[in-house]
Amino acid sequence: MAIAVTPPRGMRDFLPADKAVRESSLGIIRESFRAHGFDEIETPVMEDSARLHSGLGGDNEKLAFAVLKRGLSAADVAAAAEQDDLLSLADLGLRFDLTVPLARFYATHRAALPTVFRSIQIAPVWRAERPQKGRYRQFMQCDIDIIGEAGPLAEIELITATAATLDNLGLDGCSIRINDRRILSALLTHWDVAAELTERALIVIDKLDKIGVDGVVTELGTLGIDAPDLATLLTELGTGGWALGAGVLGDDTVEGSAPAWLDPAAFADLEALRAALPGVDLRFDPTLVRGMGYYTGTIFEISHPDLAYSLGGGGRYDGMIGRFLGTDVPACGFSIGFERIVDLLQADAASALNAVVLVHEKDADPARLVALKRDLVAGGLRVRLERRTKNLKALLDRAGEAGYGRFAFVTADTEAAAGLDFKPLGV
Amino acid sequence: MAIAVTPPRGMRDFLPADKAVRESSLGIIRESFRAHGFDEIETPVMEDSARLHSGLGGDNEKLAFAVLKRGLSAADVAAAAEQDDLLSLADLGLRFDLTVPLARFYATHRAALPTVFRSIQIAPVWRAERPQKGRYRQFMQCDIDIIGEAGPLAEIELITATAATLDNLGLDGCSIRINDRRILSALLTHWDVAAELTERALIVIDKLDKIGVDGVVTELGTLGIDAPDLATLLTELGTGGWALGAGVLGDDTVEGSAPAWLDPAAFADLEALRAALPGVDLRFDPTLVRGMGYYTGTIFEISHPDLAYSLGGGGRYDGMIGRFLGTDVPACGFSIGFERIVDLLQADAASALNAVVLVHEKDADPARLVALKRDLVAGGLRVRLERRTKNLKALLDRAGEAGYGRFAFVTADTEAAAGLDFKPLGV
Repeated sequence: MAIAVTPPRGMRDFLPADKAVRESSLGIIRESFRAHGFDEIETPVMEDSARLHSGLGGDNEKLAFAVLKRGLSAADVAAAAEQDDLLSLADLGLRFDLTVPLARFYATHRAALPTVFRSIQIAPVWRAERPQKGRYRQFMQCDIDIIGEAGPLAEIELITATAATLDNLGLDGCSIRINDRRILSALLTHWDVAAELTERALIVIDKLDKIGVDGVVTELGTLGIDAPDLATLLTELGTGGWALGAGVLGDDTVEGSAPAWLDPAAFADLEALRAALPGVDLRFDPTLVRGMGYYTGTIFEISHPDLAYSLGGGGRYDGMIGRFLGTDVPACGFSIGFERIVDLLQADAASALNAVVLVHEKDADPARLVALKRDLVAGGLRVRLERRTKNLKALLDRAGEAGYGRFAFVTADTEAAAGLDFKPLGV
Repeated sequence: MAIAVTPPRGMRDFLPADKAVRESSLGIIRESFRAHGFDEIETPVMEDSARLHSGLGGDNEKLAFAVLKRGLSAADVAAAAEQDDLLSLADLGLRFDLTVPLARFYATHRAALPTVFRSIQIAPVWRAERPQKGRYRQFMQCDIDIIGEAGPLAEIELITATAATLDNLGLDGCSIRINDRRILSALLTHWDVAAELTERALIVIDKLDKIGVDGVVTELGTLGIDAPDLATLLTELGTGGWALGAGVLGDDTVEGSAPAWLDPAAFADLEALRAALPGVDLRFDPTLVRGMGYYTGTIFEISHPDLAYSLGGGGRYDGMIGRFLGTDVPACGFSIGFERIVDLLQADAASALNAVVLVHEKDADPARLVALKRDLVAGGLRVRLERRTKNLKALLDRAGEAGYGRFAFVTADTEAAAGLDFKPLGV
């Protein structure tokens, strides 16, 4: 049969060793989020096209896989071509994020949800991007969101839960960079930046850690933005670790105060976070931008000292959830970059010792083998049967790679599980 | 915004209480299958259209959701309409089962897999069926398969793992009905049934428990099939519980022997299952048919005395996995009907006691609340914060429904978690 047997372009199969790490990591994430009072929900992988293309998804909307209507006739298709309305061929699409489905879910079920709703979504999304290293067309997202809480308690709970989850995964050394869109807005207002230049100006500010203050001032200048006092403004805010106003990380005796050009509410919210998150490595970074246009307040990203890219992020997006309801609802979310994190995690060595291989001869009695296996499973072990092959070493090596830690031979003399002589499986 | 806010037709949202039962059940299934030496894999939700429509999926192929090619022009679409080749508009489709992707996966990765490969797949599938009660367009499947094992050890391990999993889920009273396609074939050969009548004859035999022996003989007669000795043949096989040949369920001292018209290998395989599965409520049913045309040997279904429908099933399908490889590979699988089973399961009452609600005043200090929460989470509890509302009873009732079992008030006097006075939450 002349059919290629690779997965579709940009999508991945997961073999047992990788799948085991993924599932155990997802289990840790799920339990950790749940412990912090978040509740998991699920939505279908498809949404109606009209909802996916409602403008909430930004540029990602263009990347949605579209699902062909069922029962189309050739005449329907010809009509769509003639009217140049190809979107009419599709009535459904695969979600490209978990935020649009969450907004739709909240609108559908609001009456059945608590006033402050803390959601967990752990699920795949799809984007028809050009495949490249580290970018896939199907990937997992792990999102927590708090809907209905306008105050900084939402950010505090989200960051607490995320930091605890990174700890539970064994990812040491992570810090959370934090900023507020209101600070960025205040900078742009201070410099009289025109609305249509906002996005391009933010892209320049985002590069500060790469091109420095002078570089940013120069690039802003090429946009026609005069920002001679950038260094002074940043000093007033503080940079490098947490240093907002006069406050310094770890020194709660020094009370900070907001610079005159900044909304005092933004300043107070950041101070509230600092006070409530003493155990988290929180780093204020006034040049952190994050791409999504829907953020309205606090924004944050997970950094790791060994990695150039972020391991997740989020922020407050008060205007968005209510779009399907027609009323504003405050909302804030944090997403762990699962595909990046899982590459840093290893299989749990302890679980391998509880996974054993029983090597048996070709003509062994199935009833006896299964009785042995049943006894071992009942005793808490994970048990794989393997028929002995000529190349025993290859068989055992492969089982070791698959996460099994011990093996024993079943011989004609083996009468019960207690008689098995387990030896370690070198990996 | 005039966009409907329901999920797409035939698809479901899951709210926290339902999602919690689903995830904990899936976790039990996953761990139970793993303990029995099966290894989980994952494939993308989409496969290339050519693979989905390769004939392995039977009637389900017609139900596949098709994914529109990216970057189509109006001219492309017009050409497809003109050539009446609408399938050419789609290059990918959503999987309608987990067996076609498994066959593709095995062909892709065979060199990296053990000689006998025991796979777990726990994943959603999609079918564009007319939605009706209990039938959904997106639903979970939980499949285990053994590839590369030609003997009855495969069936024995599959049934052992499935029966243990049903036990672990707390589903009491299940039995496994078992038959062999070779028995059905032998009956049809014995009656000289023409090949083109096979499928319709099997549909009639499948109705024996509803219409009785006389009803089946009459209906076969209307197809032109003369089956006067059906009752005699069934007696030779045995019906009602396990009674194959002269063997009787639970009486291993009586050796059975195959009727002369039956392939002795089929008989020997069923006897091997009986001998190896003493702890399983296994019931031989020579009229069990199961729909899928690809089964070649043993077939089985999960029955429950209170339910008219089966809770899962499977069988041997030796011809199929090799289709993408070009060589025959023996294979056998068992699928748990997750959507049917999960409706019978309840949330774990014990876990509710570890889930607590902290009710606080509107102006409570976020830092204090989060510190309390952190201490309780570190102590192993699941903690939800709830701002006190006028209708406290409604708030607490809702938390009870969501699976929380205790609550306490955070007051101005609460200094540490130890000072909280937890009370039970009535549901």
